[in-house]
Amino acid sequence: MRAEDLDEQFPIVDVDSDALEAARMIAEHGLPGVIVVDASRKPHAVLLASEVLHLILPRYVQDNVMLAGVMGDALADHAQRLAGKAVGEVVPKPPRRIPSVDARDGVIKVAAEMAQLRCPLIAVTKNGRLHGVITASRLLAAALKS
Amino acid sequence: MRAEDLDEQFPIVDVDSDALEAARMIAEHGLPGVIVVDASRKPHAVLLASEVLHLILPRYVQDNVMLAGVMGDALADHAQRLAGKAVGEVVPKPPRRIPSVDARDGVIKVAAEMAQLRCPLIAVTKNGRLHGVITASRLLAAALKS
Repeated sequence: MRAEDLDEQFPIVDVDSDALEAARMIAEHGLPGVIVVDASRKPHAVLLASEVLHLILPRYVQDNVMLAGVMGDALADHAQRLAGKAVGEVVPKPPRRIPSVDARDGVIKVAAEMAQLRCPLIAVTKNGRLHGVITASRLLAAALKS
Repeated sequence: MRAEDLDEQFPIVDVDSDALEAARMIAEHGLPGVIVVDASRKPHAVLLASEVLHLILPRYVQDNVMLAGVMGDALADHAQRLAGKAVGEVVPKPPRRIPSVDARDGVIKVAAEMAQLRCPLIAVTKNGRLHGVITASRLLAAALKS
């Protein structure tokens, strides 16, 4: 079984797309994160769900988690701070190594890359362009099918 | 909104339960990982999907990812190495800080903890015992509901 037999095609998250839209995609598909691509559809960055939460929260809460306990529950208000910002502006800098395999790579290779980077999802590329995404739990499901 | 309004109850993963069963639960529910509890239902460890992949793969593949490219695709055979092992034996040692909040904590607190630990899931406890689990994408979905 190869990466291209297992990957899923989610809507493309472009570096220029709205950060709020990227957050929506993560939420709607229940993903641990998304792969962000550049204009040529080459993987540009990985944006994890926990990182989006980091982007949403006000700095003073990040600096003092105790404060979070006494705040109201207006998480939805904070989420609006993503609106109007491009994904490319908010992805972690400097960019980390993007977890990525080729569409023709075998599942053992995919598992090895994911395990090494301790990453919950990986980009699958074909001719350097994003072909799809595989989550660690999906790969695990394939491994457990006997 | 509080943690207990948002958490999900998945089957309990006990330290003494079979590691292969823990892997199945991650796969079946499409989770980024599971919270492992001790005999008193207190969170004991977090086991991520990518870590299970790490446990499944033979050491020689971990040491040399290039080798993974030339191997067959018998990931399912490797998964069997989890069988008969207790979860408590395979969770990462030394234990990391377990991402955890109280059932009555507000969602801002939950988001802050998750963002700080950059963790895709968090344990929700009531009187110190596991009450449920919240994934980062689920919390994000709650934040985006306006």
